[in-house]
Amino acid sequence: MARGRLIVFEGVEGAGKSTQLDLLGAHLARAGVAIRTLREPGSTPLGDDIRRLLLNPASHIAPRAEALLFMASRAELVARELVPALDAQQVVLLDRYFLSTYAYQVAGRGLALADVEAANRLATAGLVPDVTLLLTFDAREGLARATSRSARDRMELADDEFHQRVERAFAEFATSDWQGAHPECGPVVAINASGSERDVGERVLRAVGAHCAELRVALGAAA
Amino acid sequence: MARGRLIVFEGVEGAGKSTQLDLLGAHLARAGVAIRTLREPGSTPLGDDIRRLLLNPASHIAPRAEALLFMASRAELVARELVPALDAQQVVLLDRYFLSTYAYQVAGRGLALADVEAANRLATAGLVPDVTLLLTFDAREGLARATSRSARDRMELADDEFHQRVERAFAEFATSDWQGAHPECGPVVAINASGSERDVGERVLRAVGAHCAELRVALGAAA
Repeated sequence: MARGRLIVFEGVEGAGKSTQLDLLGAHLARAGVAIRTLREPGSTPLGDDIRRLLLNPASHIAPRAEALLFMASRAELVARELVPALDAQQVVLLDRYFLSTYAYQVAGRGLALADVEAANRLATAGLVPDVTLLLTFDAREGLARATSRSARDRMELADDEFHQRVERAFAEFATSDWQGAHPECGPVVAINASGSERDVGERVLRAVGAHCAELRVALGAAA
Repeated sequence: MARGRLIVFEGVEGAGKSTQLDLLGAHLARAGVAIRTLREPGSTPLGDDIRRLLLNPASHIAPRAEALLFMASRAELVARELVPALDAQQVVLLDRYFLSTYAYQVAGRGLALADVEAANRLATAGLVPDVTLLLTFDAREGLARATSRSARDRMELADDEFHQRVERAFAEFATSDWQGAHPECGPVVAINASGSERDVGERVLRAVGAHCAELRVALGAAA
């Protein structure tokens, strides 16, 4: 391939994004594919500083400032890590990107979609994922998974109504209407995240194979 | 007045913004006007953290991330300080706002104006200054003032061509063509910053009086 591939994992807290990202990464690495694993916010020195500000429960951050901090971390990630990795033909597995911004800052905090999209353009310079894997599951199951965690960061500490708006937004992103109106997100594939890690992992491999044809051999029989 | 007033000071490094801002603040305070002095980036706990990241010569910050960090500091300032101060009928004297973004990030770093304007809308929610005082002087004189400083921050350490683009942009902002096309900046008054502090201060008082009629008594004979 002339350019690498950008595969994004999305979903609410507790959907199993990190687990599935790691499983896919291990699978590709075993097959000899050059992979790079990144997450938002963070994965650069500046992004890590921004992450600490964003997640610190003691931080006072107005909703608009919060959105712009996530964008600043994204801009640094795109310039310093994503573009170089894709130019070097690596497969980048990224934990959170556009959908999280639309879910948490637009649906959750109530910011205007057009303004957030515009700031996103400034952050990303138009970099579109090859595929976004949106892990979905029954909302009540997710709540149980999320509340079982003891340490809470500033985002997790937001009120229940905020998290309900975020969950509804992620559910909406799985519809074809939403995807047609948001070409900047690239193809979004909803993946049922219920069941064993292995079952969900098979679904992930099939979705990646469907959107990144040159990875099918590396993905093996599942794709 | 039903709402306070937002008076912004702009200009290249060494133009004397801080000195003139302090002089105006002292003048208004002596006349019993409730004033608030703020600066960008900073003037909030989050903004101060962002300021440290932006000015640290050891920071790696991509141009788009830099613009978004300035915007994040601005968004927090607007929500936490500017709007409450204006609601409390204070006169806010602000060191840097839109013009610095257009000069440093658009002209200096080469980012697209439309994208930066859009991010600015997200940051400010449409808050327009009552007047922006743009301190102007001969560029060679400014260079001499700036280079006489010993400690340099990350912005000051950018190359000469960057600073020349910034200076040309500030000169352009003084033209009426530019102002007509940027209603989000409010009225911009170019003030000749050559001469004694006292002479420049008289020019500042007259410009403020022309745009904030209810302050004329407090400004005294000069306005």
